[in-house]
Amino acid sequence: MARFLVESSKQRDHVGIIDRYRKYLPVTEKTPVVTLHEGNTPLIYAGNLSKQLGLNLYFKYEGLNPTGSFKDRGMVMAVAKAVEEGNTTIMCASTGNTSASAAAYAARAGLNCIVLIPSGKIAMGKLAQAIIYGAKIVSIDGNFDQALSIAREITAKEPITLVNSVNPYRIEGQKTSAFEICDTLGKAPHILAIPVGNAGNITSYWKGFKEYREAEKIEQLPRMFGFQAAGSAPLVHGNVVENPETVATAIRIGNPASKEGALRAIKESNGQVDSVTDEEILRAQQLLASSEGIFCEPASAASLAGVIKKRKAEQIEEEATVVCVLTGNGLKDPDIVLNSLEFTSQTIPATYDAVLSLIKK
Amino acid sequence: MARFLVESSKQRDHVGIIDRYRKYLPVTEKTPVVTLHEGNTPLIYAGNLSKQLGLNLYFKYEGLNPTGSFKDRGMVMAVAKAVEEGNTTIMCASTGNTSASAAAYAARAGLNCIVLIPSGKIAMGKLAQAIIYGAKIVSIDGNFDQALSIAREITAKEPITLVNSVNPYRIEGQKTSAFEICDTLGKAPHILAIPVGNAGNITSYWKGFKEYREAEKIEQLPRMFGFQAAGSAPLVHGNVVENPETVATAIRIGNPASKEGALRAIKESNGQVDSVTDEEILRAQQLLASSEGIFCEPASAASLAGVIKKRKAEQIEEEATVVCVLTGNGLKDPDIVLNSLEFTSQTIPATYDAVLSLIKK
Repeated sequence: MARFLVESSKQRDHVGIIDRYRKYLPVTEKTPVVTLHEGNTPLIYAGNLSKQLGLNLYFKYEGLNPTGSFKDRGMVMAVAKAVEEGNTTIMCASTGNTSASAAAYAARAGLNCIVLIPSGKIAMGKLAQAIIYGAKIVSIDGNFDQALSIAREITAKEPITLVNSVNPYRIEGQKTSAFEICDTLGKAPHILAIPVGNAGNITSYWKGFKEYREAEKIEQLPRMFGFQAAGSAPLVHGNVVENPETVATAIRIGNPASKEGALRAIKESNGQVDSVTDEEILRAQQLLASSEGIFCEPASAASLAGVIKKRKAEQIEEEATVVCVLTGNGLKDPDIVLNSLEFTSQTIPATYDAVLSLIKK
Repeated sequence: MARFLVESSKQRDHVGIIDRYRKYLPVTEKTPVVTLHEGNTPLIYAGNLSKQLGLNLYFKYEGLNPTGSFKDRGMVMAVAKAVEEGNTTIMCASTGNTSASAAAYAARAGLNCIVLIPSGKIAMGKLAQAIIYGAKIVSIDGNFDQALSIAREITAKEPITLVNSVNPYRIEGQKTSAFEICDTLGKAPHILAIPVGNAGNITSYWKGFKEYREAEKIEQLPRMFGFQAAGSAPLVHGNVVENPETVATAIRIGNPASKEGALRAIKESNGQVDSVTDEEILRAQQLLASSEGIFCEPASAASLAGVIKKRKAEQIEEEATVVCVLTGNGLKDPDIVLNSLEFTSQTIPATYDAVLSLIKK
């Protein structure tokens, strides 16, 4: 496995989360330093929206991870540990982002990757990734929760590593984003706003913040604000949603695997969990792009939609420092934009006059 | 314009190329520090492909810029200078990546953005970006070269800033990627391999390497290897291509605006310019994804396709340190993957036995 180290170790910049946060991770000297240089994502200050909302608002743009989502942070750990444990195949159930990440890191580490997908409603950009990275795609006639259940059963009996968020190393890797936020700001924000689907990510951030306080890297912990899509809000309603529906496919999950962790994070941090409608999500996605130049996938925009809702309800104080986690890149699902925004492509003659008269309108 | 500075300046990490490379850029105290934290992209060591090809091979993954392509480096400079000069509207002709970048930085800086596009053959992911960032899209009945010609004429007469690569600030911003490669490696590579379309980028890298040698940051300059798509290779053939054709839409340009700069870079560096077929491009794109877990857009893969061709022809020495520039993210154009790879989505029952029997095949 030394091949991953040879040249990277000569580099002078960031080479991934295992290298950067080794002392906080369950890494041994036998753990290969697999990396696609995940992490080190920008924390972007939103000057225009801060002014509009009366906040000190930042976006942690996880869409700039190697496969375009936050999943890479946990996946690199899960894959490194699978290699360390001698497995040659990994498996996951996925609505998209997890499959892309699993397939990429499997390719990087020379493992086989099997992806179970629910049929229909998959963002094609994400599936394209899993395909080109070389994963074996298995489409089942069922929803995400059924796919996950089958993957759990198979990996319990076969020498295959399950890399869904129930894999404990995923949580470990994902917590590094909380470290980065603190390293960048020199403190934790007052509020961390995050989309909640399978609930592994909110669990991870909370673990990260607590570990950083334990290590005396920060003094105060943030409040954790989790936001679900209205049609897929089991944590808000307090019960499993049998047929979750939302335009935000990445959080369309009716029975979150990390429910307990999420509820604990919210309770311990004096946080909140709430839902936002698809309309609020799409409006927030567009507002973010047109006000700040940041394009995230719909699920990611749930964090901003939630902050707008809470700020209107005066449940977030003026001038609070708020970090919204943008879990995935907008390019993961461009069809949403093309379908939801009004755009009429009128073709005009290729002449100076025709163009000028149109733009002067 | 202070709004861009207020919070970013408190940050401890990378906040974009104007902040990081100010002393090498045409920046005055009146230039606003516009930023989406562009640059600081990973230089990924390709262990598997290095072994296969007998090289020391790296990929500069520019697809992890804020809008998914290298264009952001130059665009941030062009937009900052437009603001400094008091213009409130920018304009570009674009086959995709430029429009996405222009629209994003215009949104960030509060400017209007007009995008002239040739009708047809636009990667929809890129257009989705320009739309959601809020640009005004004008589709003309002509090709890229005609669109650029009209944009030049209009911006020469109206108070509108042209932000195509003929804008001199674009070249200035783009050269920072050469700086980053040298900063990371502690030297320049032996060979810099790069896709060539409008030819602004190869011009920029060469300028960057020369300035870094001038500043005594590096001792040796690299050789510049430029690769064009076979159906769109004006620099290889020595004449304008009237109707350029290639699957690599980002380099489908028949009359490169920065032709002179590209030819000078190749000549001065003892470099080469050559073409690669669409088949070689798509094969390289897939090879890169399945061997290293890196997904780039087709045009980007021209750099790897070219290196494979040159290595086979023994025009690159064994163990040479080669950096391939990957200009854009694969998510910019996922349809290419879905159309070009064989993928049959067979749906099976959601049962343990059905899934196990399929994966054991």
